[in-house]
Amino acid sequence: MEKLGDLVSRRVGDIPVSAIHEMTRLSATMSDVAFLSWARPEGNTPEFINEAAIKAIKDNKVSAYSPVPGLLELREAIVEKLKRDNNIDATPAEIIVTNGAIEGLTAAVMAVVDPGDEVLLPSPNYSTHTIQVQLASAVPVFVPTIEEEGFRPDLDAFRRAVTPKTKAILFCSPCNPTGSVFSKEELLGLAEIAEEHNLAIITDEAYEYFTFDGAEHFSLASIPELKKRTISCFTFTKTYVMTGWRVGYVVATEEMIEQIRKAHIPMTICTPVVSQYAALAALKGPQDCVTEFREKYLHLRNLMCQRLDELNPVFSYQRPKGSYNMFPKIIVEEGRDSLSLCKDLLFKAKVSVVPGVAFGPTGEGHIRMSFCTNAEDINKAFDRMGEYFSAKGYL
Amino acid sequence: MEKLGDLVSRRVGDIPVSAIHEMTRLSATMSDVAFLSWARPEGNTPEFINEAAIKAIKDNKVSAYSPVPGLLELREAIVEKLKRDNNIDATPAEIIVTNGAIEGLTAAVMAVVDPGDEVLLPSPNYSTHTIQVQLASAVPVFVPTIEEEGFRPDLDAFRRAVTPKTKAILFCSPCNPTGSVFSKEELLGLAEIAEEHNLAIITDEAYEYFTFDGAEHFSLASIPELKKRTISCFTFTKTYVMTGWRVGYVVATEEMIEQIRKAHIPMTICTPVVSQYAALAALKGPQDCVTEFREKYLHLRNLMCQRLDELNPVFSYQRPKGSYNMFPKIIVEEGRDSLSLCKDLLFKAKVSVVPGVAFGPTGEGHIRMSFCTNAEDINKAFDRMGEYFSAKGYL
Repeated sequence: MEKLGDLVSRRVGDIPVSAIHEMTRLSATMSDVAFLSWARPEGNTPEFINEAAIKAIKDNKVSAYSPVPGLLELREAIVEKLKRDNNIDATPAEIIVTNGAIEGLTAAVMAVVDPGDEVLLPSPNYSTHTIQVQLASAVPVFVPTIEEEGFRPDLDAFRRAVTPKTKAILFCSPCNPTGSVFSKEELLGLAEIAEEHNLAIITDEAYEYFTFDGAEHFSLASIPELKKRTISCFTFTKTYVMTGWRVGYVVATEEMIEQIRKAHIPMTICTPVVSQYAALAALKGPQDCVTEFREKYLHLRNLMCQRLDELNPVFSYQRPKGSYNMFPKIIVEEGRDSLSLCKDLLFKAKVSVVPGVAFGPTGEGHIRMSFCTNAEDINKAFDRMGEYFSAKGYL
Repeated sequence: MEKLGDLVSRRVGDIPVSAIHEMTRLSATMSDVAFLSWARPEGNTPEFINEAAIKAIKDNKVSAYSPVPGLLELREAIVEKLKRDNNIDATPAEIIVTNGAIEGLTAAVMAVVDPGDEVLLPSPNYSTHTIQVQLASAVPVFVPTIEEEGFRPDLDAFRRAVTPKTKAILFCSPCNPTGSVFSKEELLGLAEIAEEHNLAIITDEAYEYFTFDGAEHFSLASIPELKKRTISCFTFTKTYVMTGWRVGYVVATEEMIEQIRKAHIPMTICTPVVSQYAALAALKGPQDCVTEFREKYLHLRNLMCQRLDELNPVFSYQRPKGSYNMFPKIIVEEGRDSLSLCKDLLFKAKVSVVPGVAFGPTGEGHIRMSFCTNAEDINKAFDRMGEYFSAKGYL
């Protein structure tokens, strides 16, 4: 029994316990915390979506498995949405409905990456992308973004990072945690590298509808020649306040979907059917909520930036052009690690933010703040941080 | 672009397209088929479970993520169930709620197996277990069961199959597809081998409540010393006619659960919350439905065996002691492959059964029939098979 630790695989053993979960655990020990750490939308799923789910339950439509790739009716509605909003031509056979974007991304990584292969990730990046690569026993290769230019991708650095073992580029835009939105030109630059080296492109487009200041979300799969090597992952969860329903989808060529399907089955067999009916309603119903959420987040982003300006000696920041996250840089206490600052803010100021160390090698020295909350909580958190940093003599 | 096939990983490329899905696809081209091929319970989720899910939606409890391991209230109810029905002592921290047993099994395999490691599987076995091992870039090592003794595990063969690369034993009992129920002694024999060679034991206990003729389901995790190396996967989907809800759970030591959690996050973040509330209701509500389903399946098993007796020159079979599947052996047309027989039965007799080739190397030469349907469909299917085999001169 003394060798029990040997039972754990290196693939998971090498994944550090997430600093995010450490903070979540610590936050649960405190009361009256002002949370800027939840990258999930405040509020509830719109009523018309709930009603459709209830109707599907009452009609006994959700007891049994759906087809593995999802309800045909839902995939047909997704086809329409992809054409309308992403300019992507797809057929139902090119879609698998997944447990949020996250499962689609994991299935995509499994479908293109073997042990020891390398996957290029921008840094800072969404921490679960790193875990997805590690779970595949593959090697995450981080390519620093250019922070002072809004965390934009450094195409030259991407190109230099390619080796014979590189199999894929994986990124999200709009980006969690930085709020950057890769421009069409930048995305085409990444695609060019992928074409040159025959790499797969795996996109996380979870925040597609949340862009600001004229930034536009662009889907590489809208370019027919690129669709062949692009696996695009979307979700309903951010757009319609449906994080608890766990429903998204992956789009790729029919040939690639056949492979992704093999990874999808052991992860879930099919996405929960009640959630699929909720998703169907989301697509078929009024889309006003999407516009409302975007406007709400724009307002809250502006508030957060304004409040950050007041903390100017403590943080510098890049104004997010998308998502509902931002990634201020700590510019006091040089070398101060993000986790200890976050713990101090939690225990001494009752403010919960996420340590940047969770987001790749260039994440350290930053904290993530999410503005998918409300003005009151944002103001409360910043009032408290103002007092805390004033007391330290920084303001 | 000519190298696009290179984009596919070996791990999924090496997984054959399932014969089960081939049959499903072909069945969809036909009308008026008598299905014995669906290993999902007929009928609908009990009303009290639906009602609880609807209430949770109306109460706005399902919009947002639950904690990663699942709702605490649900894990507490699972703790009680494990004690009551499985004699397993567990705490909520030793449980993760998963997307059916299937996701728990995949997460468990990822948590203990590295590329190139070997996993022992009885043969015939549930085909997705093989895929789970392949998805981990590990090697499935099949250990034939003793068919003429009810597909019981061959402990000597298991012992001989162990190599320095063996990391785990993975099986389901009651078994899909064979209907065998491993006895306590057989399970302890497997555990002894695991102890000798420091292997993990991963159990799929999806059919725990469906045992017949005095066979008893036994959980290895009920033995405290074995709990340390045992990862037990359960599901609500078979017990409560909830396949579409995708909810189950995995039980292991807290140390191991911390590792499994790292694989669980990228597969789903959390199990859909609406399904978790449905599962909570299932555990808290009247359990009459479980007894009713078992009695129904016993009745249908008896019917299926009786009808199989009439086809005696064509099939021999082992009377299933559990699950709702059986695995008759084709004893006419020596060397006839199971897929072509299944296609003939589909196209010429309008009966859908599953080719044994899908269930491991000793599965060929068999077909799987599931009796989680109704007497009318079973009779219709056997009437048709009777005519078909009579016309061929076998009866």
